[in-house]
Amino acid sequence: MTTKHAVFHTIALAVRKNTDGIADSVGSVVDFLQAGGYTVVFEEQTALDLAPHFSGLRSMTAAEIGAEADLAIVMGGDGTMLGIARQLAPYNVPLIGINQGRLGFITDIPLEGMFEVLTRMLAGSFKAERRTLLEGSVLREGKSIHLGLAVNDVVVARGAGAGMVELRVDVDNQFMYNQRSDGLIISTATGSTAYALSAGGPLLHPALGGIVMVPIAPHALSNRPIVLPESSEIMVEIVRGRDISVNFDMQTFASLMPQDQIVIRRSPHTINFLHPENWSYYNTLREKLHWNEYPSGEGKLS
Amino acid sequence: MTTKHAVFHTIALAVRKNTDGIADSVGSVVDFLQAGGYTVVFEEQTALDLAPHFSGLRSMTAAEIGAEADLAIVMGGDGTMLGIARQLAPYNVPLIGINQGRLGFITDIPLEGMFEVLTRMLAGSFKAERRTLLEGSVLREGKSIHLGLAVNDVVVARGAGAGMVELRVDVDNQFMYNQRSDGLIISTATGSTAYALSAGGPLLHPALGGIVMVPIAPHALSNRPIVLPESSEIMVEIVRGRDISVNFDMQTFASLMPQDQIVIRRSPHTINFLHPENWSYYNTLREKLHWNEYPSGEGKLS
Amino acid sequence: MTTKHAVFHTIALAVRKNTDGIADSVGSVVDFLQAGGYTVVFEEQTALDLAPHFSGLRSMTAAEIGAEADLAIVMGGDGTMLGIARQLAPYNVPLIGINQGRLGFITDIPLEGMFEVLTRMLAGSFKAERRTLLEGSVLREGKSIHLGLAVNDVVVARGAGAGMVELRVDVDNQFMYNQRSDGLIISTATGSTAYALSAGGPLLHPALGGIVMVPIAPHALSNRPIVLPESSEIMVEIVRGRDISVNFDMQTFASLMPQDQIVIRRSPHTINFLHPENWSYYNTLREKLHWNEYPSGEGKLS
Amino acid sequence: MTTKHAVFHTIALAVRKNTDGIADSVGSVVDFLQAGGYTVVFEEQTALDLAPHFSGLRSMTAAEIGAEADLAIVMGGDGTMLGIARQLAPYNVPLIGINQGRLGFITDIPLEGMFEVLTRMLAGSFKAERRTLLEGSVLREGKSIHLGLAVNDVVVARGAGAGMVELRVDVDNQFMYNQRSDGLIISTATGSTAYALSAGGPLLHPALGGIVMVPIAPHALSNRPIVLPESSEIMVEIVRGRDISVNFDMQTFASLMPQDQIVIRRSPHTINFLHPENWSYYNTLREKLHWNEYPSGEGKLS
Repeated sequence: MTTKHAVFHTIALAVRKNTDGIADSVGSVVDFLQAGGYTVVFEEQTALDLAPHFSGLRSMTAAEIGAEADLAIVMGGDGTMLGIARQLAPYNVPLIGINQGRLGFITDIPLEGMFEVLTRMLAGSFKAERRTLLEGSVLREGKSIHLGLAVNDVVVARGAGAGMVELRVDVDNQFMYNQRSDGLIISTATGSTAYALSAGGPLLHPALGGIVMVPIAPHALSNRPIVLPESSEIMVEIVRGRDISVNFDMQTFASLMPQDQIVIRRSPHTINFLHPENWSYYNTLREKLHWNEYPSGEGKLS
Repeated sequence: MTTKHAVFHTIALAVRKNTDGIADSVGSVVDFLQAGGYTVVFEEQTALDLAPHFSGLRSMTAAEIGAEADLAIVMGGDGTMLGIARQLAPYNVPLIGINQGRLGFITDIPLEGMFEVLTRMLAGSFKAERRTLLEGSVLREGKSIHLGLAVNDVVVARGAGAGMVELRVDVDNQFMYNQRSDGLIISTATGSTAYALSAGGPLLHPALGGIVMVPIAPHALSNRPIVLPESSEIMVEIVRGRDISVNFDMQTFASLMPQDQIVIRRSPHTINFLHPENWSYYNTLREKLHWNEYPSGEGKLS
Repeated sequence: MTTKHAVFHTIALAVRKNTDGIADSVGSVVDFLQAGGYTVVFEEQTALDLAPHFSGLRSMTAAEIGAEADLAIVMGGDGTMLGIARQLAPYNVPLIGINQGRLGFITDIPLEGMFEVLTRMLAGSFKAERRTLLEGSVLREGKSIHLGLAVNDVVVARGAGAGMVELRVDVDNQFMYNQRSDGLIISTATGSTAYALSAGGPLLHPALGGIVMVPIAPHALSNRPIVLPESSEIMVEIVRGRDISVNFDMQTFASLMPQDQIVIRRSPHTINFLHPENWSYYNTLREKLHWNEYPSGEGKLS
Repeated sequence: MTTKHAVFHTIALAVRKNTDGIADSVGSVVDFLQAGGYTVVFEEQTALDLAPHFSGLRSMTAAEIGAEADLAIVMGGDGTMLGIARQLAPYNVPLIGINQGRLGFITDIPLEGMFEVLTRMLAGSFKAERRTLLEGSVLREGKSIHLGLAVNDVVVARGAGAGMVELRVDVDNQFMYNQRSDGLIISTATGSTAYALSAGGPLLHPALGGIVMVPIAPHALSNRPIVLPESSEIMVEIVRGRDISVNFDMQTFASLMPQDQIVIRRSPHTINFLHPENWSYYNTLREKLHWNEYPSGEGKLS
């Protein structure tokens, strides 16, 4: 999907904290954008972090960016992008990611050569791609005690010294199972290349519209990852266990007690990533997962 | 999804071959249906198999069933259902499955108590559920040499003594990877509880609308199962290997040579399973996969 | 390996805590043993737990059992056996396990019919089987701050809200890798059917003489389980992470900080399990792992 | 284990077939060895392959090499080494591997810099390492119809279009299970980095003394890889299936029928690899398996 005639006026910059030497890169991006006639603003945390280096640029909250900016450019890695994407999700601001280090799954423009790529994208040559978020509510005795939003995953897990948890899972009010394990990952397609993959989950194509549930070290060997429709409402109840918590993208947390319930569903918001026109999801997977790099240079038996 | 006012007149029976003592069960179903005022016919292979036991029932080809019957009842196991479902797919005849042995994933009415269940279903109390099929075309030098249809899976695999195959996979005309393995399973949600599961694939909810690609014993450890949107067109090309074949539900086959391509996409047809009103996909998984049966009765460390 | 001429005089009983109705079973075992002329004593914790029900039986510490008893009979489940086995390991007292519930991996005599089995075993008809233990020392700035003993496993793991750990692993003073994961399980053969199995590890035959390292949800997909010789000295160093701990059979714990090292090696002690003469390791696996119970009653495609 | 005072006189060269430009490398090795005063001979197949390029070098059968040579140097990849190692196994000739391409698991000397390495090794500075082989006998109606030897693995597998096999497995005359799958890999430690790894098996340290059984796409999800003591005698019986065969290192084959039995045990022969003194098994694993190359440059959530 390529949009040819997007017009951007105000562009917000969000930048990874505490990154050595990033001020120079940011400076050159600011200069590049201003030279192109764009109004450049800083996301408020970025404004604070970079205050020693920059002056004269306006600082905006997420809500202000939502109201006034047409685009956010994120400089950092996948983690930086995750955090900003979650904050901006309610405002439907498109996002471009510039990677400071090795390419990420969702920050796909390398520092080197970025101006050429940005020039084309700002002129309207890009692929736009929507990603789903999950929202979760923690219920204790029927009352919501925590709300969370996740771009990658909602994870219910035991503490280090706490033995297995037992979780009851219902989907769309139908009982699925009681599961004993280290915990359970409920992941979007975006999160399927992160923690869920490490725990044995499949890759989900972002256009699929699915949610994957991946048990972490489940006691029953047939408790395999299961991919559910995006419309599913998942209820996880703590049956037994100590020192259990739920986290959303590992960025917000709640401690849980037996009988607590976490209700997870697709967020009404979505994220709108803009990729370079020649972007391919499969290219990213191939590079990040070292596909076509075989353990042995020669194959099994040659 | 429960349909209250379906009206069935003509019902086709399809029965597993060579099953000891099945004639009695079939006889009682025929009697039950005729007593209810339904016209009962036999699928043509069933008519041949049961000729010694039954007379006076019309034999119909799949096309005739498609034109004249309102419902097909399958007596057998999941394999019998697979075969009939594939034949009837073009004609959109709803299917009910009665299991002769242990309950199957898609034959979910036990012999015992079946008349009570059927009575309610024929009166219109059932859950209807659509399942996707895959169709595949084998291209050699640009010409199609084999067409196949699969309810479960399309499998490209090497022969027993033939070493790894190397396959090139493109999805929607984008290069995914070259894969070295024993082969590749392209599976529907229905097939995700069959061979794909044995090879390490995830479970897919039938309502998801997804296709899962599961490599069999892949050389590269990062060649993990990947779930694609149902709209994907998958092209598998034989790069290297001997004694390779493709099969559709293990029921039709084609031998392959290097440079052959298999193009796989969702079939325009779907299957329409009718389940008892209290049917739950999760109940079926729980029973078939022995969820809640833990390896140790006491848990890991108690 | 069957020993025909063992002679037992003093037998210690160790019983699972807080088990409803267990006093009756214990009473009948005490009566049975005393009637056979054996001196029966209680392990000290058992003596405390059962004090309301029994009087006149001597209470012994582990050391006293080691000095004076010829055999310990454990009544409970695998967890009870693990705890007692670890305590008695230094004293080389043989162990018999009577299971109060479903059969365990290492408590293999069912309550029902136990007297017949015990009669034969006490007469010298049994299979003796040695199991390895691991011992671990936690080093902080070169000083040991915790010592532990494990029948099943030594587990280094992160806390629930703490992100990945990074661990450096050396074996026999050779660098193996830096691993990022939820943690690492170092397991005996005995533990290979417990947590290590849930995390994706292989089964190890107890006679193998091996230690298996199983990463928990490792970031690198090629960080696969590895089986090492029993003679290996494994050093795990905490490189990065918060809220990390090490546990031994989930029964003793130490909190860890970056730079801490855990040195793990085979214990000089072993455990000596006595099994009924017709015991088979494979029978136990088959029953506990539900081998020969197929997901589908009919196989993949029938 | 470093042997300081080995003395080699006659050295056999075995070289990968059909390898472009290998004659030059071989020539330089021959010159190097002859200049060092060693008698150089060719393995007979190598002699045939290289006849156009070399004259005056004696050609020897495996048996002659066994009788007269003190060392064999293999130039090629892991596959070449496997073939030679299996032929020379009865004669206990030590082996050195020079890799023509990317380093292998068992051919660990790169072409570049090889003379320096060889000089030190021929002077007695090396690590010697013994590897186990498996031997298998195929029994039909009680008579042996095929004997095979394997450095990597013995594989019983179905043909491409043949559905699952059902295999009965006994170990040391104890029934293990009936397994339904695509087949079964019985692998040495050497083979644990090859096909067994692709099928989900663990890595086995070569010093462990173990055999790993890895089912290929097993129908029962609890049919996990199991590591057995090297002393085990494994009996695999074909219960059901068509187009089944057994292969040894994918180099010798036998077609199988129901009721055929394959009896597999450790060979009385071993292989004696010589490695450079600074060789480390873990270094090889780390390089070949890309350990420390993370999917994401930044970790799961940073």
